[in-house]
Amino acid sequence: MTNDQGPITITEAAEFIRKGELTPSELLEQCLGRIDRYEERVRAWVYLDREGAREQAARLTAEVKQNNYRGPLHGIPVGIKDIIDVFDMPTGCGSKLWANSYARRDATVVERLRQAGAVIMGKTVTTAYASFDPPVTRNPWNLDRTPGGSSSGSAAAVACGMCLGALASQTGGSITRPASYCGVYSLKPTYGRVSVDGVLPLAPSMDHVGVMANCVRDLAILFQTIAGPDERRGFSFEGNTFIPNALGAISSSQTDSESEREFCILGGLFDEMLSAEVRPLYSTFIEKLEGEVALLERAVPPSAFAEVLRLHRVVMAGEAACYHGARLRRHPDDYPPKIRELIEEGLNHPATVFNTALGVSHRLADQIDRALGSRVFVTAATTSLPPDASTTGDPAFNSPWSYTGQPTVSLPYDFSKDGLPVAVQLIGPSMCEDDLFAAAVWLEHRLDFTRRPLPL
Amino acid sequence: MTNDQGPITITEAAEFIRKGELTPSELLEQCLGRIDRYEERVRAWVYLDREGAREQAARLTAEVKQNNYRGPLHGIPVGIKDIIDVFDMPTGCGSKLWANSYARRDATVVERLRQAGAVIMGKTVTTAYASFDPPVTRNPWNLDRTPGGSSSGSAAAVACGMCLGALASQTGGSITRPASYCGVYSLKPTYGRVSVDGVLPLAPSMDHVGVMANCVRDLAILFQTIAGPDERRGFSFEGNTFIPNALGAISSSQTDSESEREFCILGGLFDEMLSAEVRPLYSTFIEKLEGEVALLERAVPPSAFAEVLRLHRVVMAGEAACYHGARLRRHPDDYPPKIRELIEEGLNHPATVFNTALGVSHRLADQIDRALGSRVFVTAATTSLPPDASTTGDPAFNSPWSYTGQPTVSLPYDFSKDGLPVAVQLIGPSMCEDDLFAAAVWLEHRLDFTRRPLPL
Repeated sequence: MTNDQGPITITEAAEFIRKGELTPSELLEQCLGRIDRYEERVRAWVYLDREGAREQAARLTAEVKQNNYRGPLHGIPVGIKDIIDVFDMPTGCGSKLWANSYARRDATVVERLRQAGAVIMGKTVTTAYASFDPPVTRNPWNLDRTPGGSSSGSAAAVACGMCLGALASQTGGSITRPASYCGVYSLKPTYGRVSVDGVLPLAPSMDHVGVMANCVRDLAILFQTIAGPDERRGFSFEGNTFIPNALGAISSSQTDSESEREFCILGGLFDEMLSAEVRPLYSTFIEKLEGEVALLERAVPPSAFAEVLRLHRVVMAGEAACYHGARLRRHPDDYPPKIRELIEEGLNHPATVFNTALGVSHRLADQIDRALGSRVFVTAATTSLPPDASTTGDPAFNSPWSYTGQPTVSLPYDFSKDGLPVAVQLIGPSMCEDDLFAAAVWLEHRLDFTRRPLPL
Repeated sequence: MTNDQGPITITEAAEFIRKGELTPSELLEQCLGRIDRYEERVRAWVYLDREGAREQAARLTAEVKQNNYRGPLHGIPVGIKDIIDVFDMPTGCGSKLWANSYARRDATVVERLRQAGAVIMGKTVTTAYASFDPPVTRNPWNLDRTPGGSSSGSAAAVACGMCLGALASQTGGSITRPASYCGVYSLKPTYGRVSVDGVLPLAPSMDHVGVMANCVRDLAILFQTIAGPDERRGFSFEGNTFIPNALGAISSSQTDSESEREFCILGGLFDEMLSAEVRPLYSTFIEKLEGEVALLERAVPPSAFAEVLRLHRVVMAGEAACYHGARLRRHPDDYPPKIRELIEEGLNHPATVFNTALGVSHRLADQIDRALGSRVFVTAATTSLPPDASTTGDPAFNSPWSYTGQPTVSLPYDFSKDGLPVAVQLIGPSMCEDDLFAAAVWLEHRLDFTRRPLPL
């Protein structure tokens, strides 16, 4: 997957770098060139550290020349969503008041990327406080459309090849939705699998840090690097001591091409809420999948799913109110309408309502894991094509998994007749990212999705 | 200890508040009144949140009226050194570039103070990055003199009664020295006893968070609140699972007035480096102590102490260079001369030199603990009276304990003929703050030190 200006997948770039056919400095200049070309219209970055990135790339170039190759992220330019701390860069969080707030240390996930040799280019645009208010960023496939949110800049930057991978975060649909709208690949890991140290909270019981890139294997490379227990502030629940082996799982899946994958098409709200524009595209995708998979099952979500979007909203509002409530009163002008509405909603919830909603999430999570078994659920990644830029779109197909915590991968499978990308969402059992990646890469190789040149 | 505007010790104010004779709001107004009176000349605060403090105090006043009294910090106004994070206040660190960097959450120590009912008034001036460059703050006992550093604002604010207690930090002599110069009481706890989560590092293997106040018991109240294990990023070494009982120890010490205390006057560098101005005052203090203590011993530090100041500097420079090195190159203008010199020194140390210096600190710490037994070492708190404001003074009597990690308490015992305060430093065995407080309060009651009115 190479365009005229060089590779845009980590996998391909890494191979060139490892062999000495491309230096980290050259790769960075390709990315900076794309920024020069697209950024004025797309506006994916809130803070870009050209000079610092060049210094990092120069150091990493020297390392390769000394035969000191760190691995597949060595010299790979990445973007960091602007609610995640990077040492000595501002973490703006889409806030006016906080715009010049420099971070005093790297978030754990950033530290791990840096250690693996990634080049930290800068901070990508987030909606205000990672909520729903439309940001300045535009969809690179159609500048009148939203890139989705809240990880708007990460999705747009990866779509443009301004960086080869990006950190993102999701509390509702903030990873899968923008990735889908922008035609890039995404992973939202299992809740608790990736540290949220140094990341602005929105609703801590549903906040996930995840990644975006331009193929499934790239997601696995990024995930493998950032996942795992963190002795710092963040998560430390019992199940999170396993070290994933995502690349191993992918590699087996690719070589073992005859292995049967168990996919299960999810109906219910994932059918009902599908827009008329996406429906025929998704149907064609399912037909293709039926041609590949012998035992393609269909299921409807557990009955508790009838309430899942409402319950998710209750938890998100309640927890957002805990963090932001007092500050909203003091600095109302620093809160655009949608996040303000969310917080005010949360301030008005009785504790009983909130607590019930929180409790259901745990029961539902168990139900989903049992229902999944070793299968993978399949849904459309978003309800519709990217809407106009006055909204960030509908997270209805993603919020349930933020609420229950199962890992999801999304991958583009087609373009609409207007040239807008559409994507599919795969949901796997908790803590089974490796298997989910194996299924996703199997599917990716059968989809034969070809990236188009950007219409910019 | 009441001045014309109300109590300035936590102990006394807490008693009034508990009985309903003073409200948190009234106490806060007294502190704000002192700020109105002194701040223009003293410049202790870099960020003062009058409105936020009034809201906190009003809430805490309502709680008392509802018989919901939290304990001795309920409604007590405190200041926070400006390298420690307070939610939605800037953590400026004495940096120009970082001056508007708002913190996204409270440091663990701040969260604990808030939970205990303290009113967080704002941020007190620190030297740049908690190093040696003179800050804007002046000594309230003589505006031509330094308040000491790096916790300059905390010491000056407590001395003026602008707040009744303050958080401070020490890597060399940054707590004891300013407290001594400003005539207030201080605690530097055992290394690792108090979390450094949310605190800017200078030299992590010697960074300590501690407290300042206007009597020994106040120190114990503050310490009791902030000490203990922290599951967040910070320290978590084995010994730190004990919950201190500092107030209990003090209370026993006060009632058991006949109990013998074992003090040991430390000579060596603590004698040799004492200035001519302080020497007669300190001699008079020692004579007084001899009159109270039957078995007053004298000792010289272990021979390894000959190198302690040099070794401390090597570790501090080396670790400061790790954190600041790359940033100093990128933003040289954001580093005043003394911190710059420290970092450059650290960048030039060979690893062997650094590693040796670090190793010696552990061996020396064990030696000191063995030498101490159950005794308390006594030294002058500072080498000299506060020098003029072109320097922050000499940390030579404090750095050794930052290097070896034993807890220290300092308390004022007299004034020079020019009206400048002098203080004594007590050093206790590692993790034995309770015993150290018991000794300190015993001494405090025999010193009969009377606070003078400020000459402002």
